[in-house]
Amino acid sequence: MGFLYLCCMQQKPVLHTLLSPRLLDLYDVADSIVVIIDVFRATSTIATALYNGAQKIIPVAGVEDCIAIGKNLNAITAGERDGKIIDGLQHGNSPAEYPQSFIEGKTLVLTTTNGTRLLHMALDKGASEVITGSFPNLAAVCDHLALSNKNIILGCSAWKDRFNLEDTLFAGAVISKIKNYFTIHCDSSLMAEDMYQLHCKEIYSFIRKTTHWHRLASYGLEKDLEYCVTENVANILPQYDDGALIVR
Amino acid sequence: MGFLYLCCMQQKPVLHTLLSPRLLDLYDVADSIVVIIDVFRATSTIATALYNGAQKIIPVAGVEDCIAIGKNLNAITAGERDGKIIDGLQHGNSPAEYPQSFIEGKTLVLTTTNGTRLLHMALDKGASEVITGSFPNLAAVCDHLALSNKNIILGCSAWKDRFNLEDTLFAGAVISKIKNYFTIHCDSSLMAEDMYQLHCKEIYSFIRKTTHWHRLASYGLEKDLEYCVTENVANILPQYDDGALIVR
Repeated sequence: MGFLYLCCMQQKPVLHTLLSPRLLDLYDVADSIVVIIDVFRATSTIATALYNGAQKIIPVAGVEDCIAIGKNLNAITAGERDGKIIDGLQHGNSPAEYPQSFIEGKTLVLTTTNGTRLLHMALDKGASEVITGSFPNLAAVCDHLALSNKNIILGCSAWKDRFNLEDTLFAGAVISKIKNYFTIHCDSSLMAEDMYQLHCKEIYSFIRKTTHWHRLASYGLEKDLEYCVTENVANILPQYDDGALIVR
Repeated sequence: MGFLYLCCMQQKPVLHTLLSPRLLDLYDVADSIVVIIDVFRATSTIATALYNGAQKIIPVAGVEDCIAIGKNLNAITAGERDGKIIDGLQHGNSPAEYPQSFIEGKTLVLTTTNGTRLLHMALDKGASEVITGSFPNLAAVCDHLALSNKNIILGCSAWKDRFNLEDTLFAGAVISKIKNYFTIHCDSSLMAEDMYQLHCKEIYSFIRKTTHWHRLASYGLEKDLEYCVTENVANILPQYDDGALIVR
């Protein structure tokens, strides 16, 4: 019985939480599913646009690439800097901009600062699979990871490499729901779960204390940010495949 | 009144918490007091040895430097790797090895993996002042920072650049005691304070969950680790001056 229990324990895959893209090379990326987390707002917008029927979303690092690819594919281009649509692009980063009536069947080319960068870093390091996570698609992410039997890196996109609370809370939400499927010897994960458990019942008021809230709320985005911490309102699984995020 | 209040607010210096040495260049080190935090066990041992009367402690990165300086100054050499005294050195990293009867009046040359490295990084980046902090000297650190009127970086030494809980808890302890003296717009600091408040009443049991506990407890260091999270039992302020940590 003890031996069987040990075998069972050893077979559990490992879960880590990455608190900043700057720390990515400390983890065994090539052997893992990497979940890109950029709660305010890239991965929340990705989940929402795909949930509302977007055909695919192409995440790109730079504005010029965004414009070029958008023109080439006759796709919608989107991106913000400092809360405003970037010159030359058509739309912003708000999930509210992508209702079904607008986005269904279309391709979106999206440039964001933190989330897109981490996604490309994970791809460069040979992640076995890249998906995106946010509160609007929490359950879909958890269901996929729990059944994967693979090592997981919950990748917080952070803010210009600085730790942020909203991405950490999402990592904690995932951990609180699927921890029994994984071996977790990772202080970042213990902390993330604690922070989620501590604040999940008053998350709308707690996020008002975060640095990112202060940055974005000054652009009048309060409703957006509240939506971005609402669970399972766009419950699909964005998976990276051949240059784009799609729902299989 | 509003204007006076605003002036007052603006005059408060800024406090940040650094979660990994890898993120140090994101902060304005040159303008700050940097608190080196390496709870398990470098900075706990430094506080204890100085509290017990050590004349000074010379932190060095490498073993060869440790041996050479020790010979040159006829000083005690100390350092561990993987829980064992390093070949060629005389003592280990345990605070219990440095009672007054042994260390009083002596110079200690100490090499450790994480804390020493962050200390030298902070010096290289021109920190205006470097001190070390640990639970045994919590109050002395807080008193000094509260009166400093300078910007502060609470520098967690982490474990090979990975986030750790014990250093974060100490940062949270400091923040919980002196936050009114500082402007804090830093998610790392909000998290650190939350984690300290959540666990300060059961810290002896909580630290048993950390990755570092599992690493060090396997070497039979449980008593050491419990001491290292005990507040104010070696309440002096180690300050870096001319190559050594001293008590002024």
